Amino acid sequence: MLDRLIPAVDGGEKRLVEAMRYATLGGGKRLRGFLVLEVAALFGVAGDGPARAAASVEMLHAYSLVHDDLPAMDDDDLRRGQPSTHKQFDEATAILAGDALQTLAFGVLAEPDTHRDPAVRIALVQALAEASGAAGMVGGQMIDMDGENRALPLAEVERLHALKTGRLIRYGAEAGAILGGAADAERAAIAAYGRDIGAAFQVADDVLDATASAEELGKTAGKDAEAGKSTFVALLGVEGARAEAERLAARATEALASFDHKADMLRALARYVVERRS
Amino acid sequence: MLDRLIPAVDGGEKRLVEAMRYATLGGGKRLRGFLVLEVAALFGVAGDGPARAAASVEMLHAYSLVHDDLPAMDDDDLRRGQPSTHKQFDEATAILAGDALQTLAFGVLAEPDTHRDPAVRIALVQALAEASGAAGMVGGQMIDMDGENRALPLAEVERLHALKTGRLIRYGAEAGAILGGAADAERAAIAAYGRDIGAAFQVADDVLDATASAEELGKTAGKDAEAGKSTFVALLGVEGARAEAERLAARATEALASFDHKADMLRALARYVVERRS
Repeated sequence: MLDRLIPAVDGGEKRLVEAMRYATLGGGKRLRGFLVLEVAALFGVAGDGPARAAASVEMLHAYSLVHDDLPAMDDDDLRRGQPSTHKQFDEATAILAGDALQTLAFGVLAEPDTHRDPAVRIALVQALAEASGAAGMVGGQMIDMDGENRALPLAEVERLHALKTGRLIRYGAEAGAILGGAADAERAAIAAYGRDIGAAFQVADDVLDATASAEELGKTAGKDAEAGKSTFVALLGVEGARAEAERLAARATEALASFDHKADMLRALARYVVERRS
Repeated sequence: MLDRLIPAVDGGEKRLVEAMRYATLGGGKRLRGFLVLEVAALFGVAGDGPARAAASVEMLHAYSLVHDDLPAMDDDDLRRGQPSTHKQFDEATAILAGDALQTLAFGVLAEPDTHRDPAVRIALVQALAEASGAAGMVGGQMIDMDGENRALPLAEVERLHALKTGRLIRYGAEAGAILGGAADAERAAIAAYGRDIGAAFQVADDVLDATASAEELGKTAGKDAEAGKSTFVALLGVEGARAEAERLAARATEALASFDHKADMLRALARYVVERRS
């Protein structure tokens, strides 16, 4: 679907679209898109809508990685074991490719193929904007940049990650529920699951960053400590952080209590998030 | 409205929101927002919708200026007579503020206060995404970067600007028509007007860049020629470019033939676009 939604073009903007494809089609865990698909399946959503919303959130995520890797930001040359977008192309192209990926993420949601009901499509747009803007993902990234080289207390580190990575992961789960026309209580349960999955993911990420090799990660290891960032490992120790990730994954699973065996894949995902090796 | 839609906040993201406010509240011609308001008035739209859609397109435009001014892009220290956002803050903050302004532009459109009908709101989102993405504004910026230091033929320069600045100006006019529930023929007339106003604006901009001082412009003058960019002035000469701007403004006015005196402000805007001194 991603491949279909970002078709290669000719003309002066060819390079832009190549960079957009490079940034999105190069793999990655696709956690956010997977959540859209699995939650939509839980609610029995048919058609292209889930795949389109999944592609949209992956585009949004990819744009944030392209911009985060820039020299003025985290200055990371490696992403998913490959040169980051500004190394493969150049900085200007990477900035523009990120910008256009964000635009396309909203554009894809807006098109009728995503859902026949405009109210559902606009609810997706609104939720994505809330999750990814100044009060969400980008706000979290700003706190992260600001927090380099000074010690943040645990509550602030939790808030940073709840915004920077947690909000978009939670949105992925919520998007599936929005597509499925979930009742308020169901949507709240899915949002709680998504929030805890997102938090567990980030704590586990800190553990991996502190313990895994660059080869396993496909990105530079130990970057956070080197950048003087306050991590869960710095605050809780490796074992403390592992226990916290377990606690969050367990709470995510509890949030699914009202769903039957159809939610088993979401329960398995909670296990994967804390047990993954990369 | 812009001030109200980007309220100052505390916390680690304070600096981000300050930069978003700096980039949007510092003045500028507000051509795109003005078009939304005037066209919406033409169709008798009441309430906050037009002001919200106008603020949205100005946020989108402001984000593009913040990113275009970055060192990796046009490397411009001056914008509207003030330090550009990355000079006033820093590069990372400017990248993030641009990102969050784009998100907010879509978020504002999605909220029910913009229009009670979700179909109208999603039509605005879809039109804005088309106008500002890889097939619109950002695509045009990529062609512009790619075209530095080589001579582009007139048709390619026209396409570049039709995308880079023209599409968002045209969207401004169309957004007013969408809010007003315009019939297809009316919307097509407004789109044609917006397209020609946008083209006239850019040709006039090239003339100003070649003839006005930095003090008059509030930004560095003669940048385009210095960057080896193909301009309308380079291709047509100053007088030829002036005549082309006049032709486009006249055609924009003709597109309004089916509207009565209520469109007089739009007709006056066509004059302003080619007669302005900055």
